[in-house]
Amino acid sequence: MTDFTQQLNAIVGESYVLTSKEDLDTYGQDWSRLYSPNPLIVVKPGNTEEVSEIVKLCLQHQVAIVPSGGRTGLSGGAVATNQELVLSLDRLNQITDFNPVDRTVRCGAGVITEQLQNFAEEQGLYYPVDFASAGSSQIGGNIATNAGGIKVLKYGLTRDWVAGLTLVTPSGEVVSMNNGLVKNATGYDLRHLMIGSEGTLGIITEAEMRLTTPPKEPTVMLLAVESLTDISNLLNHFQAQIDLMAFEFFSHAALEKVLAHRELKAPFGDPANYYVLIEFECGDESAMDGAFAAFESAAENGWLVDGVVSQSNQQAEELWQYREGISESISHYPPYKNDIAVKPSQVGEFLEAVDQFVSANYPDFENIWFGHIGDGNLHLNILKPADLPLEDFKAQCAKANPEIFKILQSFNGSISAEHGVGLLKRDYLSFSRSPAEIEMMRAIKNVVDPNNLMNPGKLFQ
Amino acid sequence: MTDFTQQLNAIVGESYVLTSKEDLDTYGQDWSRLYSPNPLIVVKPGNTEEVSEIVKLCLQHQVAIVPSGGRTGLSGGAVATNQELVLSLDRLNQITDFNPVDRTVRCGAGVITEQLQNFAEEQGLYYPVDFASAGSSQIGGNIATNAGGIKVLKYGLTRDWVAGLTLVTPSGEVVSMNNGLVKNATGYDLRHLMIGSEGTLGIITEAEMRLTTPPKEPTVMLLAVESLTDISNLLNHFQAQIDLMAFEFFSHAALEKVLAHRELKAPFGDPANYYVLIEFECGDESAMDGAFAAFESAAENGWLVDGVVSQSNQQAEELWQYREGISESISHYPPYKNDIAVKPSQVGEFLEAVDQFVSANYPDFENIWFGHIGDGNLHLNILKPADLPLEDFKAQCAKANPEIFKILQSFNGSISAEHGVGLLKRDYLSFSRSPAEIEMMRAIKNVVDPNNLMNPGKLFQ
Repeated sequence: MTDFTQQLNAIVGESYVLTSKEDLDTYGQDWSRLYSPNPLIVVKPGNTEEVSEIVKLCLQHQVAIVPSGGRTGLSGGAVATNQELVLSLDRLNQITDFNPVDRTVRCGAGVITEQLQNFAEEQGLYYPVDFASAGSSQIGGNIATNAGGIKVLKYGLTRDWVAGLTLVTPSGEVVSMNNGLVKNATGYDLRHLMIGSEGTLGIITEAEMRLTTPPKEPTVMLLAVESLTDISNLLNHFQAQIDLMAFEFFSHAALEKVLAHRELKAPFGDPANYYVLIEFECGDESAMDGAFAAFESAAENGWLVDGVVSQSNQQAEELWQYREGISESISHYPPYKNDIAVKPSQVGEFLEAVDQFVSANYPDFENIWFGHIGDGNLHLNILKPADLPLEDFKAQCAKANPEIFKILQSFNGSISAEHGVGLLKRDYLSFSRSPAEIEMMRAIKNVVDPNNLMNPGKLFQ
Repeated sequence: MTDFTQQLNAIVGESYVLTSKEDLDTYGQDWSRLYSPNPLIVVKPGNTEEVSEIVKLCLQHQVAIVPSGGRTGLSGGAVATNQELVLSLDRLNQITDFNPVDRTVRCGAGVITEQLQNFAEEQGLYYPVDFASAGSSQIGGNIATNAGGIKVLKYGLTRDWVAGLTLVTPSGEVVSMNNGLVKNATGYDLRHLMIGSEGTLGIITEAEMRLTTPPKEPTVMLLAVESLTDISNLLNHFQAQIDLMAFEFFSHAALEKVLAHRELKAPFGDPANYYVLIEFECGDESAMDGAFAAFESAAENGWLVDGVVSQSNQQAEELWQYREGISESISHYPPYKNDIAVKPSQVGEFLEAVDQFVSANYPDFENIWFGHIGDGNLHLNILKPADLPLEDFKAQCAKANPEIFKILQSFNGSISAEHGVGLLKRDYLSFSRSPAEIEMMRAIKNVVDPNNLMNPGKLFQ
């Protein structure tokens, strides 16, 4: 046993230092499944002080650290490919404090998203950040990637719910940022610098998260739409008249995959090119009347060809299935996935431009489009044709990437809407951020983490 | 005329380079009125490119720059006391773009807050950040200080409404940050680093601001309360039952000043120790019933001794007068002002601790307390006794400062809730931020502005 391992044992206890091949493989990668895990060792500290000691030890031995949460990331932000120490926050999974007046909860970084959602519900409150991996993803990871999801339109991103956080800096100091205050105009808000920094500036070990009043019963409308322009019209139209919680979109190709995979009945007699799913709170009759009036006038304007409205919670959930089942229905394909964003007003125009590019250059590829387009976020999935060898498919996708990002750049869009940069998008950062911005980011990284031991190689080389 | 002045003339035109004593005095200070203005020169560029050229020229001549907006700050963040160039954003006062789908407005940094509020209203939308100086303060300054105000409880701070910003960096480069996107997970969110940085990292010249749906008719309740503990109880109670827009507080001493100054009738027959003003949206009868029920049960619990509810917009405005008139009613005193914050749940306990300290040590001083305590923000005003010479009063206040900040520190509170640090609070920063945090802030400042030409001496020495 090396001196380094012995010192780790002394900090966390032998049973929390993992070295088996299986553990290294498990903790060395995330859901992106694109990189071969190759960590040095896995350590599972039990509290912030132990994290601090591990960081100091790594600094002394110049060992790089990959902070590890639920490892549900899709951009390779939490993979260890280069003999790093994987610092798992799994054991910091306690909710240690709750204040009903402040409506804040103190969570260890390892608290599962769903655990926080359930805790909030028990208090008669609501934690509104929600997404497919809520059952596995951890609060620390959510903050490090500024996780978004399906309710951003009304509730914003993880960033908007962080009242304070505890960071172990690259030198091992424990820093409490913002202390749960609502108002605090005392210089640079380092908390916001850390949110979305993907573990490259230090390790988040604790956070004070805000809760809010639960929404009223949700109502869901599913609309059948013929053109991309109509989708923009519908967003504008409904947004002006209803307080939207979600405005989701998917193509007919996406619907077909879900229908086949879940053995569901089609929502409409006739297929349409696109579908829009709208969710809103319906507290009383007048709200419902307003929603119906908005639906009627949209139909009169010819922006939709058919529609259905949920009459119960169960129906609302059934309608959501068409949207929520997409990812799962294509998970057995090796898809080329891209999580990108433009301004909501530009979604239609952008979709057309990419569609045109893909049909012209890759006519054999099947595009599955869906996304949270109320906030401009699109998930582009290109499925591997059955007869194309995987390596060839990967090579073609790699060629398509910069072309699609060039289109995105012409729209001032984002190459990563909500999944983060990680290893996957690192080399494309310049399509979304200017040289001056990247230079400023690098300068900050260098000055905060001069030894480059915090998740090196992620975000930038 | 110096070479430097000639070059400035060439950039902006002679009429926008100001050198008269009057102009230097006007543009060299903010509303804090505590520092003697002593700028080198005042320049009023007409667009971002001119700002960039000025910054490059200043870099070449090593002239420090004080960015200048509406100069309504109260912490000396926009004063030029040391031969700096004052760069006024007054002329960047155009709203140049509006997108109804994105609900974003592109504003020059010099757009007045009220101008943006009015523009939003014309579009059937709402810009919710509002405060007493909305008629003079500018968007750029609001962003640089992360301005708060009276509706933070429901709508958050300026930070929450910035979809993108254009910054002229200390080297004169023009950088567009975030481009109005809702979702953008591409590394450090430099936009958030700039918000609240008080002009020390560059000059904000443009911003894309978000708008929202206007609130329904507001209803106002004014409550008479006997104890500080009851105020916390009321906050918890009402927050759980109504979607609050404002939860304001003032002491009886504050009310007396307003009554005298505005010649108003007292709101209640019997005076109480404290008053709470609650504002909420009242869309329909059931909301009003809910509010009344909350009021009834609060009275039954003994948390309030009297109350009045507005029955019209006019009455709502009349009730707001008791709160809004406070600052003005004490403006002719030379008060010792402090803008501080703790967690909302700790307001009562903190108030008691400070009250005890002031009565014990400064029994002749009159305390005027008020604040946005729904978000933990308190304004402490100590009035100069008529017979105490001003210099003695100032000296005593200077002695009181660290004592009050020590109490604040024990609550993990903020020495500046919403006014910023500037020159006024600079030497007290360590009461709210840890050495590690201050070190990280300084490191970032040094690496972004290595020549220390951007508003030097503000935030830290």
